[in-house]
Amino acid sequence: MNILLTNDDGIRSPGLLAARKALEELGKVMVVSPDREYSCIGKAITAGRVIKVRKTRMADGKLAYAVSGTPADSVLIALNKLLRRKPRLLISGINLGPNLGMDDALDSGTLGAAFEAALRGIPSIAVSYCMVRGEGEELVIDDLSAAAEVTKRLAESVLKNGMPRGVDVLSVNVPKGFRLGSTPVKVTKLSLKPYRDLHVEEDGGYIIKSWTLDVYPDDPGSDVEAVKEGALTITPIKINFPCKLKGLETILRSLQ
Amino acid sequence: MNILLTNDDGIRSPGLLAARKALEELGKVMVVSPDREYSCIGKAITAGRVIKVRKTRMADGKLAYAVSGTPADSVLIALNKLLRRKPRLLISGINLGPNLGMDDALDSGTLGAAFEAALRGIPSIAVSYCMVRGEGEELVIDDLSAAAEVTKRLAESVLKNGMPRGVDVLSVNVPKGFRLGSTPVKVTKLSLKPYRDLHVEEDGGYIIKSWTLDVYPDDPGSDVEAVKEGALTITPIKINFPCKLKGLETILRSLQ
Repeated sequence: MNILLTNDDGIRSPGLLAARKALEELGKVMVVSPDREYSCIGKAITAGRVIKVRKTRMADGKLAYAVSGTPADSVLIALNKLLRRKPRLLISGINLGPNLGMDDALDSGTLGAAFEAALRGIPSIAVSYCMVRGEGEELVIDDLSAAAEVTKRLAESVLKNGMPRGVDVLSVNVPKGFRLGSTPVKVTKLSLKPYRDLHVEEDGGYIIKSWTLDVYPDDPGSDVEAVKEGALTITPIKINFPCKLKGLETILRSLQ
Repeated sequence: MNILLTNDDGIRSPGLLAARKALEELGKVMVVSPDREYSCIGKAITAGRVIKVRKTRMADGKLAYAVSGTPADSVLIALNKLLRRKPRLLISGINLGPNLGMDDALDSGTLGAAFEAALRGIPSIAVSYCMVRGEGEELVIDDLSAAAEVTKRLAESVLKNGMPRGVDVLSVNVPKGFRLGSTPVKVTKLSLKPYRDLHVEEDGGYIIKSWTLDVYPDDPGSDVEAVKEGALTITPIKINFPCKLKGLETILRSLQ
């Protein structure tokens, strides 16, 4: 098996189908995805409940595995239980919505699945299409085709040349209206600015209804800025929080 | 309001109660926590569903806010809706189970809540007690008291002196049998080695039943090693995945 494919929008997502079709031009693709939508679930895993795996057919009749758990669960079960050999590449997506900044990096099931595989030594690419989730916006089929072509080309490059040195995950955001050859492509860092307040009041509680680019505060030089300017962004992530081991004398004294 | 307190074991956890009692010696404490257990949920947030907030009483009769959402939801709603002023400190815990390595950092609701607050500029401390979750192990009350004393002392130090420079979150793991003054204390980095395969077969599917220290592979110099050796660990985390902006020429060429 060459490529493991998953997502967080669930096994019925047109983004998953578009990615699978494009990736099949490169080799064998195994699809192992949540049986329902798991947006905003991050790298969460399911503990204390049985996770079932069911063979199913995608919209074009091809086989896939539907998992009654999170995207990260899907990756773990694929790697540890379903596959005999390590896949050469993990693709997560195409997500129907942007994934920008550190806040999304830790919230997104699309990135969570990529992190799960990358921590286990598998080069991983997360692909997100920057449509507005929630209210009103329709999927543009030409954009999805363009995002699928991007997915295929990046996968082909990584299969052929490996990941760039020092990079675990490529997180790719494809803007609306993206066209290969004309839309600018930028290598970016994650914005460290958090979302604005997302919750609106409803029914005596709070709800997040939609995600526009407006929820991400401006941050010059970041993935957020580049997407707001209409570029496709490639964010090369190393999964390694810096841990500063010096300068904790005061903290340590408090425990003496 | 000085201190915001949350957890991922839910508002009825004895770990939350122990932390609150200890922290009240330092100032006002507001408790905003999930109304049920949300272990392994990472920094996931709830989208598309109304989150309710209910005033409740903890086991000792004191007021707390129970949130029908994740630990990160609880932090966002506390910061954006319930509190008039930014808290000076966020404490997450005391979690009943260890949180070690990058794998847990991205899975743990305890750390997820701390990351959510830290991204918004609030010094955050996650405290985890290294009992075995799942099967058979009882909470040791003396250990919980010791972990609560640790929580209080670290909180006091950060309130007085601020966080060490370049640190967003202190993730603290308190080993079983910890005693102040005799158990060693170590400043550690996150292990980058992922869990072993956690899933066992049951009922035609896969389940994670328990978490012993054995699920973390040995990793010299890491938090995992120090806890296995019986130390209390303080892991000073900066929430910033390195993004390498050079050396992506081959990747970029694939999109030309």
